[in-house]
Amino acid sequence: MTITPERLDSMFRPRSVALIGAADKSMFSAGAYRNLVNFGMAGRVHLVNRRGVEVHGRPSLTSCQAIGEPVDVALMMVPQAATIGAMEDAAEAGIKNVIVLSSGYGEAGEDGKQAEADLVAAAERLGMLILGPNMLGFANYSARTAVTAVPVTPGTGDGAVALLSQSGASSSAMVDYAGASGADLSFMVTLGNEAMITAGHILDYLVDDPGTKAVAIFLETIRDPEAFARGARRAAAAGKAVVALKAGSSDLAARTARAHTGALVGDDRVTDAVLRELGVIRVDSIEDMLVTAGTAASVGRLPRRGTSAVSISGGACDILADRAADEGLDIPAFAPETTEKLAGVMPGYGTVHNPLDVTGAAIIDPTIWTRAIEAAGNDPSVGSVLMINGIPTEDSPTATLQRPTYAAIAAGAERSAVPVIWVSQVQQPVTAYTRELLAEYGNPPVIPGLVQAVKTVSHLGWWSQAVDQAAKGPADVALPAPAHDAPRSGQWSEHQARELLASASVSVIGSELVTSADDAAAAAGRLSPGGPVALKIVSPQILHKSDIGGVALGVTGADAVRAAYEKVTAAGGSVEGAEVEGVLVSPMRSGGLELLVGVVRDPQWGPVLAVGLGGVLVEVLKDSALATLPVTPARVTGMLRSLRGAALLDGVRGTAPANGAKLSEEIARIGNLALALGDDLESLEVNPLRVDGDIVEALDAVIEWRTR
Amino acid sequence: MTITPERLDSMFRPRSVALIGAADKSMFSAGAYRNLVNFGMAGRVHLVNRRGVEVHGRPSLTSCQAIGEPVDVALMMVPQAATIGAMEDAAEAGIKNVIVLSSGYGEAGEDGKQAEADLVAAAERLGMLILGPNMLGFANYSARTAVTAVPVTPGTGDGAVALLSQSGASSSAMVDYAGASGADLSFMVTLGNEAMITAGHILDYLVDDPGTKAVAIFLETIRDPEAFARGARRAAAAGKAVVALKAGSSDLAARTARAHTGALVGDDRVTDAVLRELGVIRVDSIEDMLVTAGTAASVGRLPRRGTSAVSISGGACDILADRAADEGLDIPAFAPETTEKLAGVMPGYGTVHNPLDVTGAAIIDPTIWTRAIEAAGNDPSVGSVLMINGIPTEDSPTATLQRPTYAAIAAGAERSAVPVIWVSQVQQPVTAYTRELLAEYGNPPVIPGLVQAVKTVSHLGWWSQAVDQAAKGPADVALPAPAHDAPRSGQWSEHQARELLASASVSVIGSELVTSADDAAAAAGRLSPGGPVALKIVSPQILHKSDIGGVALGVTGADAVRAAYEKVTAAGGSVEGAEVEGVLVSPMRSGGLELLVGVVRDPQWGPVLAVGLGGVLVEVLKDSALATLPVTPARVTGMLRSLRGAALLDGVRGTAPANGAKLSEEIARIGNLALALGDDLESLEVNPLRVDGDIVEALDAVIEWRTR
Repeated sequence: MTITPERLDSMFRPRSVALIGAADKSMFSAGAYRNLVNFGMAGRVHLVNRRGVEVHGRPSLTSCQAIGEPVDVALMMVPQAATIGAMEDAAEAGIKNVIVLSSGYGEAGEDGKQAEADLVAAAERLGMLILGPNMLGFANYSARTAVTAVPVTPGTGDGAVALLSQSGASSSAMVDYAGASGADLSFMVTLGNEAMITAGHILDYLVDDPGTKAVAIFLETIRDPEAFARGARRAAAAGKAVVALKAGSSDLAARTARAHTGALVGDDRVTDAVLRELGVIRVDSIEDMLVTAGTAASVGRLPRRGTSAVSISGGACDILADRAADEGLDIPAFAPETTEKLAGVMPGYGTVHNPLDVTGAAIIDPTIWTRAIEAAGNDPSVGSVLMINGIPTEDSPTATLQRPTYAAIAAGAERSAVPVIWVSQVQQPVTAYTRELLAEYGNPPVIPGLVQAVKTVSHLGWWSQAVDQAAKGPADVALPAPAHDAPRSGQWSEHQARELLASASVSVIGSELVTSADDAAAAAGRLSPGGPVALKIVSPQILHKSDIGGVALGVTGADAVRAAYEKVTAAGGSVEGAEVEGVLVSPMRSGGLELLVGVVRDPQWGPVLAVGLGGVLVEVLKDSALATLPVTPARVTGMLRSLRGAALLDGVRGTAPANGAKLSEEIARIGNLALALGDDLESLEVNPLRVDGDIVEALDAVIEWRTR
Repeated sequence: MTITPERLDSMFRPRSVALIGAADKSMFSAGAYRNLVNFGMAGRVHLVNRRGVEVHGRPSLTSCQAIGEPVDVALMMVPQAATIGAMEDAAEAGIKNVIVLSSGYGEAGEDGKQAEADLVAAAERLGMLILGPNMLGFANYSARTAVTAVPVTPGTGDGAVALLSQSGASSSAMVDYAGASGADLSFMVTLGNEAMITAGHILDYLVDDPGTKAVAIFLETIRDPEAFARGARRAAAAGKAVVALKAGSSDLAARTARAHTGALVGDDRVTDAVLRELGVIRVDSIEDMLVTAGTAASVGRLPRRGTSAVSISGGACDILADRAADEGLDIPAFAPETTEKLAGVMPGYGTVHNPLDVTGAAIIDPTIWTRAIEAAGNDPSVGSVLMINGIPTEDSPTATLQRPTYAAIAAGAERSAVPVIWVSQVQQPVTAYTRELLAEYGNPPVIPGLVQAVKTVSHLGWWSQAVDQAAKGPADVALPAPAHDAPRSGQWSEHQARELLASASVSVIGSELVTSADDAAAAAGRLSPGGPVALKIVSPQILHKSDIGGVALGVTGADAVRAAYEKVTAAGGSVEGAEVEGVLVSPMRSGGLELLVGVVRDPQWGPVLAVGLGGVLVEVLKDSALATLPVTPARVTGMLRSLRGAALLDGVRGTAPANGAKLSEEIARIGNLALALGDDLESLEVNPLRVDGDIVEALDAVIEWRTR
């Protein structure tokens, strides 16, 4: 079944709803009915109870077919075993959409997986669309519709943040926090096992929803990578931020997630790279997810990544500066013209820099706020202004005393070229009093707490820059047409791997495959006249050449080369069943920097390129960067610069700075060769790729195919 | 003036207070008076106004001397220029303690520094003690006393958290958050410039305050390191947690802090090491500071670092596991007996592991909570249980429905051997309703939000282990008595440095100082028979030996050694004014791992030992660990294990694992030699210290003295 936004509309904007398995004793039923009443849908709900008893103070019907009028959505609260039967009844009554709350499906072992497959098969047979199972329904706030057991309140109907959650049990806390943090919701959808409708489909639907300006998603796994990527790219193109809290970054969480949703959690670092490529903001807490989505919905794209802060507390400025350094948020120095303007604003003892402490003088003269915010908000390197001050949650003498200050701040914000975000020093709820007060001052965006403000503005700054590229999708690169004779199976010999790389224009260190001691000596003379060479046994069956004595390094002189040839071939001959192709002779290199460039197949996202600096940096610190393929040289440059050891490329300890452009081109070529090899490839690794100033060359390579 | 806890008592528990500079138009005066009234001190306050007009609806006096009865504390709200005059008047009236609110002192340039010195001189002359200047007063909640312009409310009087803040402007937000997060305050002291009374003195005072169980401190600088260290150690001995938010970790914050408080912010990494040694929990936000202090006050020391979590939301378990991995919080696997117990508790489809998802079955059967918490809370590797659930902030149908669950949780907590901490899924305030509800269930400790819970329990686990060592203070080590002839000035030659190290039993690579080519060849034959040696010119005036060609490496054979001798002496001779002592001959080494061991003098904390792994790890990644001296070998082992590249010591890429015990002993000897050299030493650096299995030896050393 094709799941289009049009098709989803009948699910998410139902004219009427049936509660199947409605019962007074069911907490789910009671909660769902209470929501329907609160959302003004009491007249559009039908209660179905097998025994036809009075439920929630109303008569019930014994089946959907007894309803006698069209119904758009059935909320299934019957036990798992009775679900398909209830669906058949609903289908008979012409109901096209069902929401399945019960658990015991994909998350519950092999039996559950089978039950889920049966559920989907039944839905397809009946022409029905399923939301769930193992979830708690949805609320569409703009359409004033709630078909959910999660306690929800109607709100203003003007909410702009859609919240999707794979976890039903956490959704209530998320909804509460959205309210408390001022992130007004447009949608709340619990996703459950996503047997038919996945996060990607809903994302796609929400891109077209005029009320939704940003989407917050809590995920344990991305079940339909293709739909998710499509939805995310469309959201990027529409300038709607997608903020994801993706669980499973730790080994422990991966284990936990597997246990409780039956979801296969992929490699978290790949997820990280993919989300970045899709322009999805990845956060690490529910709070960060909702505040960031709420702020994105309110301020949209920021013109620049750098931010400025204006506060009456020097202490707050210090904490902000520290956390900004931790999060990589740029707080640029003010331009000379800004500094000059501010010097005219600030009292004599104040110091003009970013973040700006307006000092106690602003209590006596609130216009200092106005002028400071105006100046900061027109600085050429600033993309937002954080106004840090107490924001009252209830009426008090202090709140009243602060009113001239708020008016002065609002006046400054009107003259700012960039968004001015109000930030409280600590986490605090946005209360009804706060909302009323803010409404008087133009409803500014608000972030609770300094630490959260740094995180959110850092996220939004990144997103504002990343979103164009994300909308474009994969780069348009010309893939090579690699030529080779050997069959695509097992592991190839180093010689075969080198030839393949060379055929795709990857620079490979000169080498010759020889089959006699004399040829070895001659090759050494050609490849490294008077200098040392390396000799390595070549056989697809010998994976760990040096372990069996199949490698000789730093061999100088014809006699020594001949002796080394005999040694490594003898070692090769001792390995049972090894087909020895010969011995590879290549020059020894010293100096320069070694990198590891590898491509592996991710089960969800296809071939993934990993780039790391060699030696201890990769082995001990796992310092590497990932990207899906294809990659452009510019993307590779970004990957290299993101490495913790990136400074090594600029030349330290007397080594020449690497030719970055050339290095990135070579790496992109390796990646795109892997992509060109298609689904047959299991992995391709160049280790090391050596760079020494302008010289970039692969010294060794391993290729493995999926067919053993 | 000696500032003892006894002396401070008259400041912090005044029988009566005078407001100097009281005026209706002053926000400070109005705020301070309102607090005094709210704290029931209206009858113990005297208003002093130069003109004697009615203030705050009460008559005022024109001077302290006009009061006519003993007063303990004067709150000075007069302009800076009038302060000393007002102090003289107060002194005449027998007042011994003054609190100075005005700014324009140490934080305001050279003039301000002078004004502060004058202020202190006046106080000493008058026998007065000053709190401040440049601050907003204090509140002693247990004594129901508030002498502050920060809006405060009396509370229960049973608060257990003392809050100290160098920032006056942020203290109001901190006080509000303490209330909102459930951290009941015993004290609130704004520190300002600490001209006389510093954080350390107050810390010392609070260790003896029976009501205070934990101390939260916001600091921009530690002004009196000795007093601070003494207070922190006494707090550690008393089992009272000290939680510090120390600003200035970023360069930008250091600049900001300098600008706005005039404080010299020391090297943040040294601060980090010192706080750790003192058992002080360092946090990075106001929220973390107050929640951690509040929880420490409530649960005290945890028996073990590992924690367990029990939740009805699998999503919450995942988020918790991810953040625990980020923060290094151990969530150990349950012991077999725990797993067995839990298997009997959990429904068939649930999975038993830590963190534990009790599943929706616990809604129907709340005793699952009881039994799960009992089992987790008696697991042998668990030091706390995090109970993650919604905690209502106001009355609602959901809150009522949850009551059996809360009762079941409380029953489980009673049977737990370790503290059971209630954790909400998201940040939320502890409201009056929440407090009432919790009181019904035994007033459990509460942490708002999953992320905060992970941080706080991680902090407390660390602190619980660190506090004994911190209380003990510096280790008792036998310092060497280094012997040397050379004067302690300038930089010593490598040869002099080596001799000094050797005199303190540090293993130094064998070497000989020679003054002829033949002696060089003979020395090479003795030191490295048939193998390569290094020759280096020895002169205190030649700092960068290799730059001038004063080093020859890998020289093999007598003739080559003679030639190298001539080459390096010639290079040395070309340096004008260089006194050449000779040439140092030492064997060349290869393999093993190189470390950097350095001691530098911190202006606040004295000699600090830095240990790092060599090469790119130190140069590019700045991977090093710090400690103040003296150090024990055990402490050095801890430093080495904390390095990101620590795995290298276990042997990678075919190198032998380092003899850790021997390595730590050598490093401790180097550190303690530096300490023994006393205040004359500027820096001592052994780079590299080479370790190769059981071999540990210094290959090169540099010593610089403070006298140039």
